[in-house]
Amino acid sequence: MSGVEGRLQSLGFELPVVAAPLAAYVPAMRSGNLIFTSGQLPTRNGELVAAGIVGKDLTVEEAKAAAEVCALNAIAAVKSVLGNLDNVRRVVKVVGFVASTPEFTQQPAVVNGASELLLAVFGDIGKHARSAVGVAALPINAPVEVELIVEVDHMA
Amino acid sequence: MSGVEGRLQSLGFELPVVAAPLAAYVPAMRSGNLIFTSGQLPTRNGELVAAGIVGKDLTVEEAKAAAEVCALNAIAAVKSVLGNLDNVRRVVKVVGFVASTPEFTQQPAVVNGASELLLAVFGDIGKHARSAVGVAALPINAPVEVELIVEVDHMA
Amino acid sequence: MSGVEGRLQSLGFELPVVAAPLAAYVPAMRSGNLIFTSGQLPTRNGELVAAGIVGKDLTVEEAKAAAEVCALNAIAAVKSVLGNLDNVRRVVKVVGFVASTPEFTQQPAVVNGASELLLAVFGDIGKHARSAVGVAALPINAPVEVELIVEVDHMA
Repeated sequence: MSGVEGRLQSLGFELPVVAAPLAAYVPAMRSGNLIFTSGQLPTRNGELVAAGIVGKDLTVEEAKAAAEVCALNAIAAVKSVLGNLDNVRRVVKVVGFVASTPEFTQQPAVVNGASELLLAVFGDIGKHARSAVGVAALPINAPVEVELIVEVDHMA
Repeated sequence: MSGVEGRLQSLGFELPVVAAPLAAYVPAMRSGNLIFTSGQLPTRNGELVAAGIVGKDLTVEEAKAAAEVCALNAIAAVKSVLGNLDNVRRVVKVVGFVASTPEFTQQPAVVNGASELLLAVFGDIGKHARSAVGVAALPINAPVEVELIVEVDHMA
Repeated sequence: MSGVEGRLQSLGFELPVVAAPLAAYVPAMRSGNLIFTSGQLPTRNGELVAAGIVGKDLTVEEAKAAAEVCALNAIAAVKSVLGNLDNVRRVVKVVGFVASTPEFTQQPAVVNGASELLLAVFGDIGKHARSAVGVAALPINAPVEVELIVEVDHMA
């Protein structure tokens, strides 16, 4: 078992099978030594772990937990094109879209659910640039959607 | 006529003149062998083909047709910096922003209008990672905006 | 003083200390010769220069001025990883998220505040691809958030 996958397991996470895309696209695509993931929803076994608009239907803590599930799915998407997660050299960028009422302005606290998992799993190379924004609505009524750009070993 | 442009024509599409940016930017920019397009709106000859918020002013099918027009404009934007579309090596990433009511959650069905055109035109190298999100509003009341990252032949 | 920083000063701008991230991430991350910034808010000395939703709480002009402050913070974020801003070879991509009512559709005019500063400071290499979208809400009630991708000298 790889070091990254071992850390996931020791943190109590099970790496999911990559979530099937909802449409005509793939979970992640590599170009050179960058992997761009598709936007990942907080699904587990094909079902949302939480649904709705943050600030109305969910608390910050519930949405943060959902963002962690998004990140787990994003890691699975990276693995689907890379094979061995130990060939990740750097998490470069995270974008977190949070379904928000116009009054909800704690998107960073929500997206921390993704960022903190990446730091726990990847350690120092898990540090990343990030944008967090509040959107009107997300696919299948998801409260949060997370996409990653990661840099991988160019020999991998 | 190039293979890609020939396929566009055989599918019944005419590649537009690149849409003029609405402000102080350019339709697409190349860095190394990646081209990043600007967000493309569903305009034809400078006019929106559809307007408004999806879930209120437009149906999914109308918005999907608009997303196809966005993708056509994005291909034109790529051509504006690359010259020959046959030098596209891979569509890497698509982001689709759908102007949505808080209740509208079928963004993937809308952005399929862009994804399916890319697959039809580019074939296997048209497969891409993708994010689809529902935003509050878009420039000039567009229902959808699409941006691309494509990888091109580094000799091109 | 560098050429870029000299131009900033001659335009009447003072390059801020990089804005502290609101959470578990870093202001910018480099991968190869690309630097991806985090989404930058219009803060000065840790305080928003303007707050609220554009189209309701702020005018276009107020939001445009805020977008300029975002761009200034983004330049500071680039400097935080690059050291010398004269090693910027190209501004590649700008994404501007504008907190918008569903009726507000002048996002390009707002994000011009960022684009025009980049052109003034970087000159011809400041030209960039761009997306501007209207989102439901932004962190700490910011009216605008701007992220950049810049290409830097690969020897820098």
